[in-house]
Amino acid sequence: MKMIDVGGKDKTARIAVATARVRMLPATVRRIREGRVEKGDVLAAARLAGVMAAKRTPDLIPLCHPISLSAVSVELALSKEGVEIRSEVKTVDRTGVEMEALTAACAAALTVYDMLKGVDRGMQVERVQLEHKSGGRSGTWERGGASAA
Amino acid sequence: MKMIDVGGKDKTARIAVATARVRMLPATVRRIREGRVEKGDVLAAARLAGVMAAKRTPDLIPLCHPISLSAVSVELALSKEGVEIRSEVKTVDRTGVEMEALTAACAAALTVYDMLKGVDRGMQVERVQLEHKSGGRSGTWERGGASAA
Amino acid sequence: MKMIDVGGKDKTARIAVATARVRMLPATVRRIREGRVEKGDVLAAARLAGVMAAKRTPDLIPLCHPISLSAVSVELALSKEGVEIRSEVKTVDRTGVEMEALTAACAAALTVYDMLKGVDRGMQVERVQLEHKSGGRSGTWERGGASAA
Amino acid sequence: MKMIDVGGKDKTARIAVATARVRMLPATVRRIREGRVEKGDVLAAARLAGVMAAKRTPDLIPLCHPISLSAVSVELALSKEGVEIRSEVKTVDRTGVEMEALTAACAAALTVYDMLKGVDRGMQVERVQLEHKSGGRSGTWERGGASAA
Amino acid sequence: MKMIDVGGKDKTARIAVATARVRMLPATVRRIREGRVEKGDVLAAARLAGVMAAKRTPDLIPLCHPISLSAVSVELALSKEGVEIRSEVKTVDRTGVEMEALTAACAAALTVYDMLKGVDRGMQVERVQLEHKSGGRSGTWERGGASAA
Amino acid sequence: MKMIDVGGKDKTARIAVATARVRMLPATVRRIREGRVEKGDVLAAARLAGVMAAKRTPDLIPLCHPISLSAVSVELALSKEGVEIRSEVKTVDRTGVEMEALTAACAAALTVYDMLKGVDRGMQVERVQLEHKSGGRSGTWERGGASAA
Repeated sequence: MKMIDVGGKDKTARIAVATARVRMLPATVRRIREGRVEKGDVLAAARLAGVMAAKRTPDLIPLCHPISLSAVSVELALSKEGVEIRSEVKTVDRTGVEMEALTAACAAALTVYDMLKGVDRGMQVERVQLEHKSGGRSGTWERGGASAA
Repeated sequence: MKMIDVGGKDKTARIAVATARVRMLPATVRRIREGRVEKGDVLAAARLAGVMAAKRTPDLIPLCHPISLSAVSVELALSKEGVEIRSEVKTVDRTGVEMEALTAACAAALTVYDMLKGVDRGMQVERVQLEHKSGGRSGTWERGGASAA
Repeated sequence: MKMIDVGGKDKTARIAVATARVRMLPATVRRIREGRVEKGDVLAAARLAGVMAAKRTPDLIPLCHPISLSAVSVELALSKEGVEIRSEVKTVDRTGVEMEALTAACAAALTVYDMLKGVDRGMQVERVQLEHKSGGRSGTWERGGASAA
Repeated sequence: MKMIDVGGKDKTARIAVATARVRMLPATVRRIREGRVEKGDVLAAARLAGVMAAKRTPDLIPLCHPISLSAVSVELALSKEGVEIRSEVKTVDRTGVEMEALTAACAAALTVYDMLKGVDRGMQVERVQLEHKSGGRSGTWERGGASAA
Repeated sequence: MKMIDVGGKDKTARIAVATARVRMLPATVRRIREGRVEKGDVLAAARLAGVMAAKRTPDLIPLCHPISLSAVSVELALSKEGVEIRSEVKTVDRTGVEMEALTAACAAALTVYDMLKGVDRGMQVERVQLEHKSGGRSGTWERGGASAA
Repeated sequence: MKMIDVGGKDKTARIAVATARVRMLPATVRRIREGRVEKGDVLAAARLAGVMAAKRTPDLIPLCHPISLSAVSVELALSKEGVEIRSEVKTVDRTGVEMEALTAACAAALTVYDMLKGVDRGMQVERVQLEHKSGGRSGTWERGGASAA
């Protein structure tokens, strides 16, 4: 187990996009939509938690490189099933930011859970997954698509 | 948005159990089973990452109380679909440890992803969910079961 | 320089309240009031940053004891001069939470600065101060008032 | 709320200088000057706390970019009113270090408070403010002065 | 690998004492004694770094329990061979603080190294060891002595 | 005490190698060799703890610069006297990574201690030392050897 050597790679612009969903009861979705959550603004808290977690990624994922991030955004939207999360992370560095995007999505999802667990303990975080990755030697990767250098 | 006041609650023994799954290609499962992962021992790394992440929960989840933990364990097992994760966290305190158990499960899942992403970028973290919770005023909760004080 | 020994003190309910102000141009106050801040919801971000910073206090203040917190809240309001911040922290422990309340107020103030610095670099954080403290051997303290055991 | 994209900016040498003051009773100033503080060397502890806090800035300020710092210094001096703090932070990166300088000044001020709060609970942190900023697209900014590219 | 369950243990007063030495050239010892170190006051910086590191122990040592600490002190003294370090940590909790004392001693030693490495890169950290432990079920332990319940 | 200015240095490839030893009873060495340690796989846990600690170095060592790391590895081997640790850290930056390598070695050593302290409390961490350093203005340094630019 070691943090692999990326010193020989070029510094290039890299992007990663990840998504996640928090599945919940319809009544819980309504509660968010109507702003009736005792702990406060669920989506604002989750968005901020996601951004901040992206910065903590190397503290959480043992073999992840500590790198500078040039942009982090986390968007949340309500759907019929629950909360849909999409994170996007950018860097100009020697290694990709997939783990940062996935960590941001997870932390946002867990924050949604935390703020609503008093009323819907059965919520599930689903389909935490990479959607897109570009930049770097391995080229562009799209979920469900063909990858191209 | 505030960290709710638990000062009036009793200090009681509390347990939370969470699970998660990392779904992956059959070839990726075989790779783990046969110890052919370049970055090293996937399950050992994920187990440790999960335990350590439980301790970082209040740093990640904005409204989570910082509390002492009396036990944390994270178990990983291979299934046909991928890696099955189960975390268990205990405390003797004024608030529950659901978030710690869920955070441990997520961090273990993301660590599995990190160690294998070079060979299977499409992996998904699925069904991060609470399975059991006991101790405290709200009593015992079981997924799929009736709750009882 | 050492972290003084509080092992002989009683665990009692303790509260600390702190305030701070971010003084800014009238045009900047209007910008917040009208929701025209490019980086997003200033007050929501600052509130959350304040709560999270309270939990990091022992990481920042060298001789501060690491303790459990039972409640943290941070309120922000617009005034003619700028943003008025009030934090309240509670614990049931052997030492007070003045530093946690002050750290929460400072972090909230700095977050306000960060979100608006592009339009008003001259903003000042003013009067970061303890307002109230109760619980523990030294009794109740009120700013501007007489203290009483 | 998102961490804005600085990936398109140039890496340039950037400096930020901030100041703060801890206002205190004349007797408290004398106590520091005469080295009669039970918790130890106030100014040394505050200086170090300020330097270390600069490095934690992205953990505290939600939308702050995590970047390398090339220099951090924190100076403290006694005045009639209390302790005068001046921090200076440098980087060679795509974004400025105003928040790092302000965070260093705040943490130094709070550390002064912590070491003396047993004898002067009414101390106030005042005028935490940016004094100077240079480097980067927006050019040089001086408090009280004209700014020039 | 798991954090063992201490929930069934009693909360008792516990102490741990650890020591370490940084062995260095005689010229380096003189340099410290005469205050001729460019980076500043070596012993003050190391003392503070040791105290702060004790609080970070559960972040560093994977299976260490996060607990409250009631006292931490780190003393440094010059000897002919170099710098002698002694840390003492106390808690009133369900598990001992040996790791906190050892971590404090190590961090103090590494800080000494950091501040002097420009002039004596060959320095060694030696004999990081537990000296004393008391409180808890396993009773008192003394280095070189008989242990007694 | 300040973090010295490295802004004028070149970004160059830099390597540091450090070693440490945990001296223990022969029976304790046998216990590791035979996998009879209750807390789990000692060497795997220590390796991971070492890698993760390298990333936390600027949080622990007050005047250490926060920088990107391009590679971290920690190797552990059993000898007659105990556990021999060797860490190697690389960067492409303006300052060396000696402190990161030494911190990784220390954290790995302390983790070995933590996992075995129940059976051998007298273990000692010995000879934490830099073995090699290259890259940067001061050139190559080898323990016991002549240094050359």
